[in-house]
Parts: sequence; structure tokens; C-alpha cells
Amino acid sequence: MFGAVPGPAKERLLQLLRLLEKHTLAGNTDPVTSAQVEHLTGWHRDTIRKDISCLSEGGIIGGNSGYDPETLAPLIKKALGLDRRRKFCVVGLGRLGSAYLHFTPPELVEFELAAGFDRNVNRVEILRSVVPLYPAYKMTEVINRLGIEIALLCVSSEVAQEVAEKCVSAGIRGILNFAPAALALPPGIAVRNMNVTDELRSLTIKMCKEE
Amino acid sequence: MFGAVPGPAKERLLQLLRLLEKHTLAGNTDPVTSAQVEHLTGWHRDTIRKDISCLSEGGIIGGNSGYDPETLAPLIKKALGLDRRRKFCVVGLGRLGSAYLHFTPPELVEFELAAGFDRNVNRVEILRSVVPLYPAYKMTEVINRLGIEIALLCVSSEVAQEVAEKCVSAGIRGILNFAPAALALPPGIAVRNMNVTDELRSLTIKMCKEE
Repeated sequence: MFGAVPGPAKERLLQLLRLLEKHTLAGNTDPVTSAQVEHLTGWHRDTIRKDISCLSEGGIIGGNSGYDPETLAPLIKKALGLDRRRKFCVVGLGRLGSAYLHFTPPELVEFELAAGFDRNVNRVEILRSVVPLYPAYKMTEVINRLGIEIALLCVSSEVAQEVAEKCVSAGIRGILNFAPAALALPPGIAVRNMNVTDELRSLTIKMCKEE
Repeated sequence: MFGAVPGPAKERLLQLLRLLEKHTLAGNTDPVTSAQVEHLTGWHRDTIRKDISCLSEGGIIGGNSGYDPETLAPLIKKALGLDRRRKFCVVGLGRLGSAYLHFTPPELVEFELAAGFDRNVNRVEILRSVVPLYPAYKMTEVINRLGIEIALLCVSSEVAQEVAEKCVSAGIRGILNFAPAALALPPGIAVRNMNVTDELRSLTIKMCKEE
């Protein structure tokens, strides 16, 4: 199923899903045409039609008047693996990690915070949280028992590689890495880097285009 | 100066800068060749040479043996606008915002946290911080007085647009947006979105490639 949609098409479909959600949130139930999507995204309408045709075996989803958002959005979610809730945990409960223990905006529907871990046993006992917190040595047992797939890695860059390896050996398959450190992990483990240092640099480049 | 380097080249140069920094951090002072960079990044060595040639008027930076990291890194920083320290502030001092008040890793050399803002005056008075905190109504005065260019926007998605507009009218030119909300701002204002919701979705897509 997933093999059917190539990587760049998946990125476009994710952005299209966001557009459809915005459209629906605004109370709009009209069909969406590939011409409208072309206008909003800059992708050619043939590319958009081709991406969407990957989503069903017959290849025909929209009519002449466009695509129905309420039909299209679930098909995209299914193709992107967003059609079932996945569990995640927070690893490292310093200031940033404990902030993310409480970060459950309504937009986070497809993901469920299931646990938090820290190597400091006192911290685990003292911190308040709506999900259970555990000392780091229990990671493998808890991650397997609860079926947690994703970790938010909120540790310092000095220990990021070591802790990421522990996550992977405990069964984690995707890591959001908040540490300003590049992780070297086995193929098959997905990583997204999300750190203020790199983002501030990228932002500065964008700002300088305007200078 | 900045106009000389096109957008995609800037992104590559930023990644090259990270490679050079890693190289230097590892205690390596050997020259870096375009063939090595090609191997690490997948970009063609001619592209790499062309990008680097944008950095100096004469167009000649490296010798036959490669590029000296200690000469090349400062040239890249200059071309990308990273050669002077820029001030940033945190706007919205809830759990996430106050975590970022204390997030000053050594890698953050080019940026200086200068202030924090919150509309809740009590919170501003009670919170501990190494930088001064101000009530939101003082934003314009403080941002101008201190010369702050960048804001980390750590407010909820409901108020993100409104607060972002206040930042811009106070003189902010770049925003790291932590709220899962798309901002519509005037041209000339740089925005980078950095929210767990979108990142978890992108991570899931990467994970599904492997399923």
C-alpha cells in the first residue's frame, strides 16, 4: 500500500491534507479542484491529479467538479499512515521535555502521549504529569508493553546519540530530535531534527533574502 | 552582497557550514575537497564548487588540495548573514516559552536571547529568568530599544496570528512559530514553523516508507 506513493508525492499529499483541513475548518464543504490547489501551492495541476490518483486502485476519485474534501482527506491519511493513532513518549524530562508532557493541542489527534522517561529517578517521582513517568532503565519494558513507536528526544546534545540508541534498542522507530546534534542511527529508523539553533540559522537566511 | 547567492545555494551552504563545523569540532584541520562533500551530501561536486565560488568576488577560494575549513566557514557565515549576533526574544511564557528562556546551548553562538514577553503581568513578575521579562504592552518599546530582530512565538494556535501581527508591528522581522497554525504575514517577514503536530506527521511518513 505505502509503496505505491513515492516520497515527494507523500510530502505534497501531506501539504494537501493540511489545505483540506483548513478548508473544512473554515466551514467550507465545497469540492476542491486541482486548479485551486495549483493556485495555492504552485504545483502543476497534472502533478496534483497524478498524486491523488495514487490513492485509489481504480485511480478515479474526483468528479468533473473537483474532489470532495471529506472523501479525499481520509484517503490521504490512509496512504500516509496517519489513519491510526500512534503512541509517543517524551525522553528526558528537563524544562523542554516537561513542557512537552503538557503540550497536547487539539490538532494532535493522530498521536497519543503515552509516557515520559528520565534517568533521574527523583525527577520522575516529583514531576506532575497526566501520563505515567518512568525511570530510564524501564524504557524497553514500558515501550514494548504500551506499544510506543515514537520518542521526542529532549536531552542535551552531549548524550543525544547514546540515548537515541537506547530508544531504538527499546523498540522506538521514529525520533523527533530536539538536541542540536546529528544522530547516526540504523536504516529503518526515521529521524526529524527540530532544534532552535538550526531553525534560527535557517530563519536568518530567509530574513537576509529581504535585506 | 546577499543577492549574489541564490536561495537553494544558501540552503546547501548552510548544510556545508554544519559539515565544516563538525569536521573542525572533531579536531580535524585538513582541507575539505568537493569530492568529500559530494560523498557526504549527494550534491554534484560542480554544484558545490559553483556555490563556493559565489562567496568571493575573485571566485577562487580553494586550492588543488581542497578548501581550508577555517577560511571557508567565515565566508559562508558572512554570505548567509550569520556573521553578526542577532537578538531574539520569547513571546508567550507558558510551559514551552519558559523552557526556551533557559535553552541556551553552546551551539547558539550567533544568537542572543534578550527578553521575554507575556500578556500576564503576574507571570512576568514571578518567573525566574536570566534575561529581563516584560508585559506584552511594552513589546514595541523594548524590541526597538534592544534591537531585537527575531521572536520565538510560543503562544496557542488561537492567538498565534494576532500575537504575530503585534510582533511585526513592534519591529520583529523573523518568527519561529511553535503554534500549529499557519501565519499570514506581510512579505519581508520570515517565518519558520516548528510544531510537534506537523513534525510528528512528517516523521510518520518517513516511518511508513520503511513499513
